[in-house]
Amino acid sequence: MASALEAIGERWTLLIVRDAFYGVRRFNDFQVHLDIPKAVLSDRLNGLIEDGIIVRTPDPAHAGRHLYELTDSGRELWPVIHALLVWGGKHRKPNSRVYRHASCATLLNAAGECAECHITPPPQDIVTERRRGYRPTRDDAVTVALKAPRRLLEPLET
Amino acid sequence: MASALEAIGERWTLLIVRDAFYGVRRFNDFQVHLDIPKAVLSDRLNGLIEDGIIVRTPDPAHAGRHLYELTDSGRELWPVIHALLVWGGKHRKPNSRVYRHASCATLLNAAGECAECHITPPPQDIVTERRRGYRPTRDDAVTVALKAPRRLLEPLET
Repeated sequence: MASALEAIGERWTLLIVRDAFYGVRRFNDFQVHLDIPKAVLSDRLNGLIEDGIIVRTPDPAHAGRHLYELTDSGRELWPVIHALLVWGGKHRKPNSRVYRHASCATLLNAAGECAECHITPPPQDIVTERRRGYRPTRDDAVTVALKAPRRLLEPLET
Repeated sequence: MASALEAIGERWTLLIVRDAFYGVRRFNDFQVHLDIPKAVLSDRLNGLIEDGIIVRTPDPAHAGRHLYELTDSGRELWPVIHALLVWGGKHRKPNSRVYRHASCATLLNAAGECAECHITPPPQDIVTERRRGYRPTRDDAVTVALKAPRRLLEPLET
């Protein structure tokens, strides 16, 4: 576990990974959504790349820019992210988003299971949507793009 | 989630919480097992107390010393700790310990479920033991006390 924490045991790092599950792929999108200093974002992305959690590829739509996407081992961090979301939503403040099993629309339980289908769906089979009644305090391009329900890991177009 | 990470998004903090699940309660035991500088341990324990995750009480066996134990909200961090253990064990290095459902001895699956009983046991219903073949590199009192199988949250006597 200590070695897992060396890779991801830091606040910004886990928020970057969470945003990657939401489909954020561009440096500027992480930057505006997390409101993180560019130097810090660059440092944390490089760490995640070194640790094999994020992969960087050229952005076909913007010469000279890159896309940052979760690797297979990065995608397997979903249970960690979900467990943190559940705990924070219960003990800190209500979450802004909810998570449903895509094929049956059942809300996932605290353990990340679909009680209807008796499975623990992988992130690509989960749809996230804004919690009813939640009013976002930000209006950056990512917050706006996340308004509609969407499947985790589906690239976000901003 | 950002507010959850403000409370626990730091390497030492999560290792302290993990040790608390193993039954560690005394300052010196955390210190020797984690090999953490005393000032850092003191700082992280105080943060966990402020955040309502750990509670500090006088140690009846040692005048002037304290016991540090998980609160109810601290105990609900188990799914986060377990998810990190699973990921680290798969993508970094094999875990030194395994986790079984106490009532049936079935190994928990990656989602923290007992597949035999179809439930996700809470930590007090989980027994942890050293993985067969694992040779610890440390010989501090906590490592020695953790040699035998034990129930999570059961106070460790060193």
